[in-house]
Amino acid sequence: MQNLTNRRWLLACYPEGLPTPENWSMDVQSVPEPGPGQIVVKARWLSVDPYMRGRMSPAAGYTKGVGIGEVMQGGGVGEVVASNHPAWKVGDIAESMSVGWQEWAVLTPDIFGPAGVNKIDPKLAPIESSLSWLGMPGLTAYFGLLDVGRPRPGETVVVSAASGAVGQLVGQIAKLAGCRAVAIAGDDNKLQWCRDIGFDAGINYKNASDLTATVKESCPRGVDIFFDNTGGPIHDAVMKNLRIGARVVICGRISLAAQFGKPDIGERFMGHLIVTRASIHGFLVFDWWHRRDEALRHLSDWQHAGKIRFKEDVLDGIERMPEAFLRLLEGKNFGKQIVRIS
Amino acid sequence: MQNLTNRRWLLACYPEGLPTPENWSMDVQSVPEPGPGQIVVKARWLSVDPYMRGRMSPAAGYTKGVGIGEVMQGGGVGEVVASNHPAWKVGDIAESMSVGWQEWAVLTPDIFGPAGVNKIDPKLAPIESSLSWLGMPGLTAYFGLLDVGRPRPGETVVVSAASGAVGQLVGQIAKLAGCRAVAIAGDDNKLQWCRDIGFDAGINYKNASDLTATVKESCPRGVDIFFDNTGGPIHDAVMKNLRIGARVVICGRISLAAQFGKPDIGERFMGHLIVTRASIHGFLVFDWWHRRDEALRHLSDWQHAGKIRFKEDVLDGIERMPEAFLRLLEGKNFGKQIVRIS
Repeated sequence: MQNLTNRRWLLACYPEGLPTPENWSMDVQSVPEPGPGQIVVKARWLSVDPYMRGRMSPAAGYTKGVGIGEVMQGGGVGEVVASNHPAWKVGDIAESMSVGWQEWAVLTPDIFGPAGVNKIDPKLAPIESSLSWLGMPGLTAYFGLLDVGRPRPGETVVVSAASGAVGQLVGQIAKLAGCRAVAIAGDDNKLQWCRDIGFDAGINYKNASDLTATVKESCPRGVDIFFDNTGGPIHDAVMKNLRIGARVVICGRISLAAQFGKPDIGERFMGHLIVTRASIHGFLVFDWWHRRDEALRHLSDWQHAGKIRFKEDVLDGIERMPEAFLRLLEGKNFGKQIVRIS
Repeated sequence: MQNLTNRRWLLACYPEGLPTPENWSMDVQSVPEPGPGQIVVKARWLSVDPYMRGRMSPAAGYTKGVGIGEVMQGGGVGEVVASNHPAWKVGDIAESMSVGWQEWAVLTPDIFGPAGVNKIDPKLAPIESSLSWLGMPGLTAYFGLLDVGRPRPGETVVVSAASGAVGQLVGQIAKLAGCRAVAIAGDDNKLQWCRDIGFDAGINYKNASDLTATVKESCPRGVDIFFDNTGGPIHDAVMKNLRIGARVVICGRISLAAQFGKPDIGERFMGHLIVTRASIHGFLVFDWWHRRDEALRHLSDWQHAGKIRFKEDVLDGIERMPEAFLRLLEGKNFGKQIVRIS
């Protein structure tokens, strides 16, 4: 498709610790022709998510990393402009984690699983929702809390990075499950938003002189479920407040992005686990992909009933992708970070 | 019972880190008369177990610690010499975790749960078995492996402190469950015993220059279940070899006995948990006490069928209780440490 110019971000080199803008370089090429069974999508919105730090390495652990000179991996949503697939027509809206950091993408809808392509109904919600509460972050909150955390009415759920894409949903689903929800964030505006959407209490970890004691004040009966997006010293402080039988969901460790490939900062204290008979669960949303429809139906119903609200943080332009990702890693975003592509 | 002289070990002071002989003092008194519903037991065998380190503190976490001047807590088995309880008669064999480090104990059989008293059938097994494979350590191995670890045929189970009271049983039950069992211990004689009773491989952690690599050699397909009795650097090395969906049972942290009340030595690496979707489970056998009969029946059947064997390490005399406990903490025992009381 020689007439279509595609700006795309290639991985230039692997970062040590925190990524910097030099880790990517912009490249321009024409859009390839779609092969048999493929579609061409014009990206309208691209996502940045913490998991991308893992992909910026030769082996991301659970999947292949991005190779040097390859397009940076990432999800996006946009419209189909050409199709060699019988189920897809021009004008359809396609969302996929295989879009990458680029303006145009050639996709293969018949791949099953997270790398596949989802048809989005633009009447259901703004299409960019498929990158946030009605997409992968929504699934993460839904399965991580409900299937791994297993909330019961009356329990206390603590969420770190609580105003983030996943955190704000975890708190609201916890409330729907009859729990008490406690937010941890590093900014009072973020915490005010958390209260606005239903969290019962908020902790600004940057203001706490003794975070363990502050968590205890907010959770006097202890913590039943800890949905952890940050790791590090926040993790430690909550772990010291676990109640008997607590479940800890390890969803992310964004506070340790600079520690990539290195051990966590903070303390390990397995004795607490024995005393509390608590469990810690490493969680990856892709294991629940076969139940995607169930989760999206619930999320959509809840949103239409006014039971969940969602904040996005929007930047404009493909050229801002590295900036968007880096401010996410630094906690400078307020709500789910997405980038609008013209 | 003025005619009966009872030698007993009192807790003299709380230890910092590893206990020393000075933490206890021997006291002599006459045996109290049994109250209504109580029995008097002449101890024949006393147990020392790693959990006792936790009890040597004002709060053991999950239960009350031993107070200064109180009899040191511990399990024992012996014969009934006086009874005010209709279900117990003189000559019956009684086992209880409430005996304490003493020659005679006044016990209350009607307490439900771990502090209660169990009637032992001396025809089933030597009575001291009720302190080891046919008692609390047996229950620990049974429930910790089968209910928390949930072994499936073909999986790889790694056991630390593998020749210890719990470890040797975990390995043999893992084999009965169709798993591959790998022992970790610090002595080649201990590892030879582990092989003799059915472990498929053994690792001497004291000889390994790179324990992570050594675990990988012994577990080329990764570790499905890690039954951890030690914590610390052994824990780290196994954690770096977890397979997807692995279960880690935190049963004890005896390698960190000197770290009591302090964080673990070693690394925390929650990123591994996300990649492997593994889970870590704090485990306390007392949560399974209501299923004690089920476990003991299985353990007894297996032993009579020649499917489990068990090594004990016997010292003689009430005066050796502190020594027995300290050599346990130092890993100098070979098999379940018990003390015979004349």
